[in-house]
Amino acid sequence: MSYFEVGKIEYEGSKSTNPYAYKFYNAREVIAGKTMAEHLRFSMAYWHTLTAGGADPFGANTSVRSWHKYSGLDLAKVRVEAAFEFLDKTGIPFFCFHDIDIAPEGDSLREFYNHIDTVVDLIEEHMKSSGKKLLWNTANLFTHPRYVHGAATTCNADVYAYAAGQIKKGLEVGRRLGAQNYVFWGGREGYDTLLNTNLRLELDNLARMLQMAVDYAKDIGFEAQFLIEPKPKEPTKHQYDFDAATTIAFLQNYGLDDHFKLNLEANHATLAAHNFEHELRIARVNGMLGSLDANQGDLLIGWDTDEFPVNIYSATLAMYEVLQNGGLGRGGINFDAKVRRASFEPDDLFLAHIAGMDTFAKGLKVAAKLIEDRVFENITEQRYSSFNEGIGAEIVSGKATLKSLAEYALHNEQPRLNKSGREELLKSVLNQYIFTE
Amino acid sequence: MSYFEVGKIEYEGSKSTNPYAYKFYNAREVIAGKTMAEHLRFSMAYWHTLTAGGADPFGANTSVRSWHKYSGLDLAKVRVEAAFEFLDKTGIPFFCFHDIDIAPEGDSLREFYNHIDTVVDLIEEHMKSSGKKLLWNTANLFTHPRYVHGAATTCNADVYAYAAGQIKKGLEVGRRLGAQNYVFWGGREGYDTLLNTNLRLELDNLARMLQMAVDYAKDIGFEAQFLIEPKPKEPTKHQYDFDAATTIAFLQNYGLDDHFKLNLEANHATLAAHNFEHELRIARVNGMLGSLDANQGDLLIGWDTDEFPVNIYSATLAMYEVLQNGGLGRGGINFDAKVRRASFEPDDLFLAHIAGMDTFAKGLKVAAKLIEDRVFENITEQRYSSFNEGIGAEIVSGKATLKSLAEYALHNEQPRLNKSGREELLKSVLNQYIFTE
Amino acid sequence: MSYFEVGKIEYEGSKSTNPYAYKFYNAREVIAGKTMAEHLRFSMAYWHTLTAGGADPFGANTSVRSWHKYSGLDLAKVRVEAAFEFLDKTGIPFFCFHDIDIAPEGDSLREFYNHIDTVVDLIEEHMKSSGKKLLWNTANLFTHPRYVHGAATTCNADVYAYAAGQIKKGLEVGRRLGAQNYVFWGGREGYDTLLNTNLRLELDNLARMLQMAVDYAKDIGFEAQFLIEPKPKEPTKHQYDFDAATTIAFLQNYGLDDHFKLNLEANHATLAAHNFEHELRIARVNGMLGSLDANQGDLLIGWDTDEFPVNIYSATLAMYEVLQNGGLGRGGINFDAKVRRASFEPDDLFLAHIAGMDTFAKGLKVAAKLIEDRVFENITEQRYSSFNEGIGAEIVSGKATLKSLAEYALHNEQPRLNKSGREELLKSVLNQYIFTE
Amino acid sequence: MSYFEVGKIEYEGSKSTNPYAYKFYNAREVIAGKTMAEHLRFSMAYWHTLTAGGADPFGANTSVRSWHKYSGLDLAKVRVEAAFEFLDKTGIPFFCFHDIDIAPEGDSLREFYNHIDTVVDLIEEHMKSSGKKLLWNTANLFTHPRYVHGAATTCNADVYAYAAGQIKKGLEVGRRLGAQNYVFWGGREGYDTLLNTNLRLELDNLARMLQMAVDYAKDIGFEAQFLIEPKPKEPTKHQYDFDAATTIAFLQNYGLDDHFKLNLEANHATLAAHNFEHELRIARVNGMLGSLDANQGDLLIGWDTDEFPVNIYSATLAMYEVLQNGGLGRGGINFDAKVRRASFEPDDLFLAHIAGMDTFAKGLKVAAKLIEDRVFENITEQRYSSFNEGIGAEIVSGKATLKSLAEYALHNEQPRLNKSGREELLKSVLNQYIFTE
Repeated sequence: MSYFEVGKIEYEGSKSTNPYAYKFYNAREVIAGKTMAEHLRFSMAYWHTLTAGGADPFGANTSVRSWHKYSGLDLAKVRVEAAFEFLDKTGIPFFCFHDIDIAPEGDSLREFYNHIDTVVDLIEEHMKSSGKKLLWNTANLFTHPRYVHGAATTCNADVYAYAAGQIKKGLEVGRRLGAQNYVFWGGREGYDTLLNTNLRLELDNLARMLQMAVDYAKDIGFEAQFLIEPKPKEPTKHQYDFDAATTIAFLQNYGLDDHFKLNLEANHATLAAHNFEHELRIARVNGMLGSLDANQGDLLIGWDTDEFPVNIYSATLAMYEVLQNGGLGRGGINFDAKVRRASFEPDDLFLAHIAGMDTFAKGLKVAAKLIEDRVFENITEQRYSSFNEGIGAEIVSGKATLKSLAEYALHNEQPRLNKSGREELLKSVLNQYIFTE
Repeated sequence: MSYFEVGKIEYEGSKSTNPYAYKFYNAREVIAGKTMAEHLRFSMAYWHTLTAGGADPFGANTSVRSWHKYSGLDLAKVRVEAAFEFLDKTGIPFFCFHDIDIAPEGDSLREFYNHIDTVVDLIEEHMKSSGKKLLWNTANLFTHPRYVHGAATTCNADVYAYAAGQIKKGLEVGRRLGAQNYVFWGGREGYDTLLNTNLRLELDNLARMLQMAVDYAKDIGFEAQFLIEPKPKEPTKHQYDFDAATTIAFLQNYGLDDHFKLNLEANHATLAAHNFEHELRIARVNGMLGSLDANQGDLLIGWDTDEFPVNIYSATLAMYEVLQNGGLGRGGINFDAKVRRASFEPDDLFLAHIAGMDTFAKGLKVAAKLIEDRVFENITEQRYSSFNEGIGAEIVSGKATLKSLAEYALHNEQPRLNKSGREELLKSVLNQYIFTE
Repeated sequence: MSYFEVGKIEYEGSKSTNPYAYKFYNAREVIAGKTMAEHLRFSMAYWHTLTAGGADPFGANTSVRSWHKYSGLDLAKVRVEAAFEFLDKTGIPFFCFHDIDIAPEGDSLREFYNHIDTVVDLIEEHMKSSGKKLLWNTANLFTHPRYVHGAATTCNADVYAYAAGQIKKGLEVGRRLGAQNYVFWGGREGYDTLLNTNLRLELDNLARMLQMAVDYAKDIGFEAQFLIEPKPKEPTKHQYDFDAATTIAFLQNYGLDDHFKLNLEANHATLAAHNFEHELRIARVNGMLGSLDANQGDLLIGWDTDEFPVNIYSATLAMYEVLQNGGLGRGGINFDAKVRRASFEPDDLFLAHIAGMDTFAKGLKVAAKLIEDRVFENITEQRYSSFNEGIGAEIVSGKATLKSLAEYALHNEQPRLNKSGREELLKSVLNQYIFTE
Repeated sequence: MSYFEVGKIEYEGSKSTNPYAYKFYNAREVIAGKTMAEHLRFSMAYWHTLTAGGADPFGANTSVRSWHKYSGLDLAKVRVEAAFEFLDKTGIPFFCFHDIDIAPEGDSLREFYNHIDTVVDLIEEHMKSSGKKLLWNTANLFTHPRYVHGAATTCNADVYAYAAGQIKKGLEVGRRLGAQNYVFWGGREGYDTLLNTNLRLELDNLARMLQMAVDYAKDIGFEAQFLIEPKPKEPTKHQYDFDAATTIAFLQNYGLDDHFKLNLEANHATLAAHNFEHELRIARVNGMLGSLDANQGDLLIGWDTDEFPVNIYSATLAMYEVLQNGGLGRGGINFDAKVRRASFEPDDLFLAHIAGMDTFAKGLKVAAKLIEDRVFENITEQRYSSFNEGIGAEIVSGKATLKSLAEYALHNEQPRLNKSGREELLKSVLNQYIFTE
């Protein structure tokens, strides 16, 4: 049985006019010493591709899917079949899910556990036969009304306990399916108004929950990399994991920084008024770059649009940071992206993933060439060269004092304006690499 | 000689129709056990009130000031006279300045030192005779072209040394004038493009400069509170001290957090997509709330407008955080605000400061009454009461584990949705306090 | 049978601490020659109060409503009962609805017509017995998947015809229930990407639909005021009725401006980067101010939050424009506002509407007093007085030419900078009126 | 004498690594039947390139220019020399200026006229010898303090007359130099606060000024195309020419639309929450597309950054609209862009203009190929094909009524969801054209 009429998609080279083909992505092509597949550990997001259906706050589902006729556990099972057919046909090696993406919640935590076990059996079977892998899983602690005031930052201890129950199961599922990572995204961990909020207690409780998760993973021998995914707002007015810097600070404050890295999303970055490469750079220089949620927002729009990533500038600079990081380790590139509501046909799922994969493939090639040619490295090293000797070296070594520096400045002539940052040239060169690589 | 035709301004009670009078501010009125003057340590910003003149990126100065006919050191001296006349007539007890606000830079660091010494002599004299105090001073490390690539984060070691020379003098001036605080605002400490930026070196150098300042202040016995003022961007595309959370993280990372608190500005908060009270709350729960730059931005406008604060909601919630913090200690409320370019008459300086002081005076009264009546405290305590006993107490005490919580949740019924956050009611009650206090 | 436990809410004066009472709204109080009820023609939005339930893009419904146990036509009927109980208890005289708020769509247009007729029978009955009135109704042309590409701007002629069928019925229902106005909000009338959009055809078709509606209303003798409600985006990336100015231009372009006025919403204004009073002023000076959708957005958040209006500045300046407009005629003040997702108790519906009504009542009082005292009028008239005589009068009369003006300027001295716009003073005076009225 | 050390820049083909060469722009290359030079009527902005110096609200000028040693009229004359050397070396055929860019204001309007005459003599001479042309000129009615309250919308009739005097001279200069267009940008035509603003009088006066300019141009036989340049805000809080739609509406309202087209700027578009291609499309379908101000903003930053345009998506879609418009007629592509403050060397002026010209050259090629292949046209025509026959044709022809359409819909089955808008595919195809053209 097939859920999609599309055949297996092949790399056909950049001259093909068939839209169902990769123009730039070729899993086996070698770039900078590794295959594209090794660089670009692409992952399908179960929720956008299998579970959701195009609804928005002003409109009902539009997507046409052959599995929409099922419901309950049957629907859950059919989605597994469809998911693995999609992974097979697209050649995407990884997938990610929240617990409630794969199984219905039922009426109690116990029933939910049972549903999950049933579906995980099926997933495990498909993973074995297909070789597909779980990039990460997570617990959805934001959709159910019980989480209206938060999960780890709720004002209701029973809700906190329920959330702990979901996380516990999530860790067990992750271990069983060999998840490479386990993600925490706190969509309701924040506040709507300070007027009724005990901010300190909420932050403490959030840290406690994360520590419990660290402890339990150790107990059960689950060795995934733990990841936190920052987002500044939406659905909650203010979310505690605002951006990379804020999240790293939180982890350090509570002594959790050895156990976590960051899962950074492009659209979340721009909602926090940063570009994607900024967030990656901040994580990278702090040794916290874990994994990517690949998508893009519309910067003229103030909510999370989760569009498929097709901006070559963003993809190139993201891959530049990834390469400079020595890769993503256990992390990958998860398409946390949804087809537009008006792209409701099943084919759009293929076309959109191809669009995203090709953009990142092109970005990888451009970034690798930029690094090979040391385009940005040369100018950067030259710019800061005054810190390699003389007074600069004294500053960097920590020997300088205000007194010694003032003394130096008093006897020096006015510092000369050298030299231009060459921003326009650098951006023009970036264009040339994009157009000719 | 007088620089303003306005006479001394008195508190005249809220029924006065004279615009040159405080309607709500009365220095001697006692609120919550302290006089208004003790709560509201108002300060005049030298740069906006004495130095600047209404220019914007598309237009020249408009302000009409009797001292504009002078130049050089003469101008600097006349401004001191005018400043103290203004402080006297308005009854504002504190002032703040950057080094280049009070003295011309000249052609060398040595000449600048000399100019500063000359003007500081005059300021010291006026301080003695008037009783006015210096809330804080700082070094301007962003206006001169030498700082085009940053000061403590420049790529040019000579520029770094020059900046150190300015800071050293700033600390000496602060000690001499008995400054209560010393501020660091890094308008050029950030980057314009990552393509040519060594972010790690820049952050390290920034931390080194701050550490040198801490060391030198200790050397010379300058006991001011050191403050960092966050701002996310402008003039630089991305500034390292993005917001309170990012700045606290930076200080912790480099072991500087014992030596610094934050000087938080309302307009900088909103540019970082936070409201003012959020930034104050974050600083407060981290024990880092130092001082306020009182102003307001226009949230439909994307740059720093530095308007005089006239929004009662913001002023009330700011004073609420200040009162909950037990006051601001050595800090104060500095009007980092400028009259609009079209408010170019000298009288506007008075009218604007009165507007700001009255708004904060009203805000203080409302906040004090809200706290006295425990309006927000009662609902907040009740909301989180489930963490005071049973499973909640186990969570808070650190005894709970994922296993024990899951066990609890499995045997508990679905958590009940209790209870409403009552946001609309709380905002309505806030209105009632504002309208009737 | 009762759907709410709250008793009838009375005006109790501003000293009451009972949250279920109006502090500032008193229907019978006379302000500027009319009762508050005559000034403030408050309306309940059926969709937010009866139909919706707190869901957001990341979470399920949370609201606790006694009618949630019903479904289909039964649910529709029960909602009518609840709606009129709510109107009765709150004393709100008007209501508004979309067609699908009151009746289920069914499987065909014919079935939908039948459902509507059934429910409208019931509504008509309740209107008669209660005296409540319909401020406006409208057709929902954005929720159903058929409208994925737009309704009047769809690329599918069958969908266009279906939309016409809904509008036709809407006009008939409006006539039957004596609707004061009929509203068009084009949530899907716009585009997601220009790459596949025939913008000119879409605009033409939109105008054709509006013209057909005008014609049909005339045919059936439906004399409501037609209103267009601008919104710049959301759900669609770009919507044609971007703001007041754009919408007025569209109507003029197609010769429709005599038949329409504007229904202006505060949150839509701020999403278009205007404040509410700007949109009202633009409509007012163009003779197009029809009705208000009263709510407020969060300016730090980029989507439509539809919060209940509690900002006194916005309410005051809105009522100022309304009073200067000589009232709203057939229009009113519709609370297009929803309780926060965390305000899920039935009581919150009452508390939120009271909050909004009291804010507008206070705003009305302040605005009336400001106008009575000619606070803004005096300074404005004085500012422009140079256009009342001499060269100014020649300009205004149309006699001046570039040549005559240049001649004048050549022989005149440099224009003097007179005089200050006094923005800070005006805002301070506004505060004083708010705090003391 | 030379003001720049750079030699004449030639087209060297895309393989050159010399940064002082065009990689994609070749004036003589033929695209879609016209040379690149005919398509891309590039223009240098005198103010950014000759007059300004890198200052921002927080910092002084940084730019290193050999003419900075001069002042007054001498400076003005030297700038003319430098301007034409720059035009010669870069091969840019057009330039644009404000009156005060080329000549000092002096102390009176008469003195200003004299200064202008002197400099225009020199410019005219250089134009003759070089063949360079004036794309447009304009009067700067926003920098001088006299325009603090506006120029055509000032509250001071003397200021209005003075502005008229500047415009009169501007039209005469334009005629003398054979300007192709004459531009109106109203940086101070708007309001800072509604509290003191007579919006109706201001709009009327603005229209009167434009009408007088139309009349005077006719009087003196100046046949340039008149252009209005929209911008939503900055420096003024709200500007009347908010965006293309608002400006077109204003022109129609006052019967001025036959005399004006629009000069659209990319950065102004994004400040108004539109993308550049939206503004071009709106102007195009209204027959109002006149000329382009080519630059780009940073969408994470809320002010006008006027960066050189290097975004290939924006340039491609802009050129797509231009080609669909049949070109720009008398209009052109003016680089209203400034080198970054940190790009302070003279070479940066060349590198930045090359970056911009190359981006538009590449964009032209991609757009021409997209149109040749009818990539967007085919899908668009197919999408709307239902309006070519049957019920769709009746709608478009104006024969349909609500009644006839409802009748049709009642007898039709539910409209089918056909078909996907294919946004992801279209964006992916756009990428392919960019990467391979």
